[in-house]
Amino acid sequence: MRGRIDLNCDLGEGFGAWSLGEPGADTALLDVVTSANVACGFHAGDPVLMGATCEAAVARGVQVGAHVAYRDLAGFGRRFLDVPADVLRAEVVYQIGALEALARAAGGRVSYVKPHGALYNAIVHHEEQAQAVVDAIAAVDATLPVVGLPGSVVLRLAEERGLPTVAEAFADRGYRADGTLVPRGLPGAVLTDPDEVARRVVRLVLEGVVTADGGTDVRLAAGSVCVHSDTPGAVDLARGVRSALTAAGVDVTAFAAR
Amino acid sequence: MRGRIDLNCDLGEGFGAWSLGEPGADTALLDVVTSANVACGFHAGDPVLMGATCEAAVARGVQVGAHVAYRDLAGFGRRFLDVPADVLRAEVVYQIGALEALARAAGGRVSYVKPHGALYNAIVHHEEQAQAVVDAIAAVDATLPVVGLPGSVVLRLAEERGLPTVAEAFADRGYRADGTLVPRGLPGAVLTDPDEVARRVVRLVLEGVVTADGGTDVRLAAGSVCVHSDTPGAVDLARGVRSALTAAGVDVTAFAAR
Amino acid sequence: MRGRIDLNCDLGEGFGAWSLGEPGADTALLDVVTSANVACGFHAGDPVLMGATCEAAVARGVQVGAHVAYRDLAGFGRRFLDVPADVLRAEVVYQIGALEALARAAGGRVSYVKPHGALYNAIVHHEEQAQAVVDAIAAVDATLPVVGLPGSVVLRLAEERGLPTVAEAFADRGYRADGTLVPRGLPGAVLTDPDEVARRVVRLVLEGVVTADGGTDVRLAAGSVCVHSDTPGAVDLARGVRSALTAAGVDVTAFAAR
Amino acid sequence: MRGRIDLNCDLGEGFGAWSLGEPGADTALLDVVTSANVACGFHAGDPVLMGATCEAAVARGVQVGAHVAYRDLAGFGRRFLDVPADVLRAEVVYQIGALEALARAAGGRVSYVKPHGALYNAIVHHEEQAQAVVDAIAAVDATLPVVGLPGSVVLRLAEERGLPTVAEAFADRGYRADGTLVPRGLPGAVLTDPDEVARRVVRLVLEGVVTADGGTDVRLAAGSVCVHSDTPGAVDLARGVRSALTAAGVDVTAFAAR
Repeated sequence: MRGRIDLNCDLGEGFGAWSLGEPGADTALLDVVTSANVACGFHAGDPVLMGATCEAAVARGVQVGAHVAYRDLAGFGRRFLDVPADVLRAEVVYQIGALEALARAAGGRVSYVKPHGALYNAIVHHEEQAQAVVDAIAAVDATLPVVGLPGSVVLRLAEERGLPTVAEAFADRGYRADGTLVPRGLPGAVLTDPDEVARRVVRLVLEGVVTADGGTDVRLAAGSVCVHSDTPGAVDLARGVRSALTAAGVDVTAFAAR
Repeated sequence: MRGRIDLNCDLGEGFGAWSLGEPGADTALLDVVTSANVACGFHAGDPVLMGATCEAAVARGVQVGAHVAYRDLAGFGRRFLDVPADVLRAEVVYQIGALEALARAAGGRVSYVKPHGALYNAIVHHEEQAQAVVDAIAAVDATLPVVGLPGSVVLRLAEERGLPTVAEAFADRGYRADGTLVPRGLPGAVLTDPDEVARRVVRLVLEGVVTADGGTDVRLAAGSVCVHSDTPGAVDLARGVRSALTAAGVDVTAFAAR
Repeated sequence: MRGRIDLNCDLGEGFGAWSLGEPGADTALLDVVTSANVACGFHAGDPVLMGATCEAAVARGVQVGAHVAYRDLAGFGRRFLDVPADVLRAEVVYQIGALEALARAAGGRVSYVKPHGALYNAIVHHEEQAQAVVDAIAAVDATLPVVGLPGSVVLRLAEERGLPTVAEAFADRGYRADGTLVPRGLPGAVLTDPDEVARRVVRLVLEGVVTADGGTDVRLAAGSVCVHSDTPGAVDLARGVRSALTAAGVDVTAFAAR
Repeated sequence: MRGRIDLNCDLGEGFGAWSLGEPGADTALLDVVTSANVACGFHAGDPVLMGATCEAAVARGVQVGAHVAYRDLAGFGRRFLDVPADVLRAEVVYQIGALEALARAAGGRVSYVKPHGALYNAIVHHEEQAQAVVDAIAAVDATLPVVGLPGSVVLRLAEERGLPTVAEAFADRGYRADGTLVPRGLPGAVLTDPDEVARRVVRLVLEGVVTADGGTDVRLAAGSVCVHSDTPGAVDLARGVRSALTAAGVDVTAFAAR
């Protein structure tokens, strides 16, 4: 094998009568990825869906991660909420525990934690909230890896706390020369050509490099690559990435086997 | 010792800015009871309060129980909800897991499950919902005792499933000659005289008998006695019960030490 | 014209990031129906979606109705909730008022009330909840028509209270010989053949008759016909009904012009 | 009369089984104030409580205001939420409409709008959210006054939009020499001596001046004075303010009679 990478994806993002993404996409993506970020009921995900997603993941050998979020169903967790550290800490513990019980009932367990949406973005910089997330994970199980943006405050604090960390890259997002993402809404923020996306991911894994917005190469160390689930063509994009990786001799496998 | 009994109480029934019961009542009651039924966020209880209640319980050697409920914050879980079995099952697993994580972060764990409010009442008779609750508990941990009404469907199904069961009596409620509770709203439904309440509980524990509404004695086997937390004078009532039990030589201790 | 009928449809049933039905179905249905039952936030519907649905309805001359429901986002209002009358009454007033403000901001107003889901079904028989709904509507505006099942308690109580009432039939549901619906799950409960559905609706409007399950004719007086929005092919079914009605010389128009 | 002032107060801040403030405080305060800021269900307030508060206000001739907030029951609306303008606008319309219907059912109506908590604080500076609130009020009724902090962005934008505005002062808060409030947590932020509070309010109304933190006088023009409802002794403080104003010959009366 010429390198190794994990593929992660957000799943179980419906709620009650509502589902997200194209019908069948969740199941199809579980045949492609190695890590499933499962919504825990705060931004999406109801207990039935959480359990069913865990069952489907366990059946395919896909590891389950807690996709923890702000308490914001109406906003899908995509809006910054100035929640105090003690509240955020307890809410993250609550979400991990709820998913853990459902994962165990499905014969699996929670193998990592990945913050969602606005919380994910906030704790790239927000020291207090980042510390609350780290404290929460450590309080539940200090061997649980946390997935986040390379260079983020949350990954730094997690390392200081002794938690395993996994830096992730985004398969279909453009990068700038400084290694940050091209903000959504700007040209080049989201890549939609499956071949280009697959080529970039392969190069990222084999060479640790992505071509940035202006054409320069940027070094990027990632233990996991996120493929999106809620964009049109998400399944095809993910399949293309996995095929290209396999064809290139890369071992596509979960980063953690707790 | 002349017998043994557990005292349980509903605690942590606030939510966010709101608290329930008189200020300080929760802490005072934790000095009296041996089992704390902790609200899990569906009828009451936010993660911070759940964690704080677990910490206070652990500090006093009081065992923590999951007070699982219908998803009904607006109705405090006191309204029957015709929730399908698969949803109820998953919701109970979710609630137990969420509390378990917070209890563990506090150095404790969930030691039993007691359904709350309208769910408690429904599964006295409702086969399908009772089975869902039993299935949920068994899916999480088949050694977890379930607390319920003597003669209820849920206790019967739990026994059939091999779960430990604990029948409970109510310290301040009147009983009818057939062993059922005098319905709220009727005369004699709720007893408020601390001395009378204490005397009845002592007799229940030592003789397995309560005086029913019409004056006759009714046999009642209970492994736990519930003292209420949200009535005026709740703390004094609970203290009176505990003092009388201790004075009578009864061992007041938790029913389960998982 | 040879008769007149209103076509109503449930719309705006998404919430936040989630939508219901096929993409574009809501807009397409607004080109077909004459009355839009708009979800008011209790079972579905967020304020942005409510406002947008009102705007789209107003733009097409479709009247807006308040699709009031139990407070049950997680269950989409499809589960019976044993809510006390005073709570239900206030909640219905709340929902009508919220939609009225958004409808007015869109240049329209609320022209009728139609209870949703489990509430709709409950108040076919449940006197107390039916009375609460009637009281709520009367408290807001005693000229607001209420839409319900022919022969239901809610329509009887509404008439006694002096509210205008509109009995409705279902375009794609089977009827039994006694005029009640074939319960979902049984054969013949839901009709999917567009031609058959259209033919039945035309006959219902022109003759006041539907062919029941066993083949006999049943008399059915309806002021409005409900076409569903969340079934596959909903738009085509609705278009077929409207075309057939128009071809048959029926005036398809809203029942109320407040 | 020697001047005129309105007294406003936050009321109806319970939810379901939970109440806020001391028992009976809401009713007692309605005998003192002239404007009731009624929670609309987003940070607190359920429809029953909203209706009951409106009834009690109407019975006493107290005008009802919509106390609109972020959608954040768990945080009591006290946490900044980065909600997009279109969502905030629709949510404010929704809340005003819901309260309007309940106020009308109680024989009254909504006479003004006062944003609550973190939203109140945000729109002192946050142009986009302030504009959304202004747009919402204008969409409902451009004659509805908006209550806010003197010098705030929201009052400036409201004036530009042609909405009536009411600047408010806080009876029990300390001011700094620049006219801003002493931040909570700092010495002098909250005043608890009823006599001092009453004296300051009288001077504010008669002279348009408050003594700031360092002892200097600050000019402050206020059309309404807010007395708090959730602090210990809130009722006594409010009564003291009203008595002192009356004794000083001030006309304590609502700012708006729509």
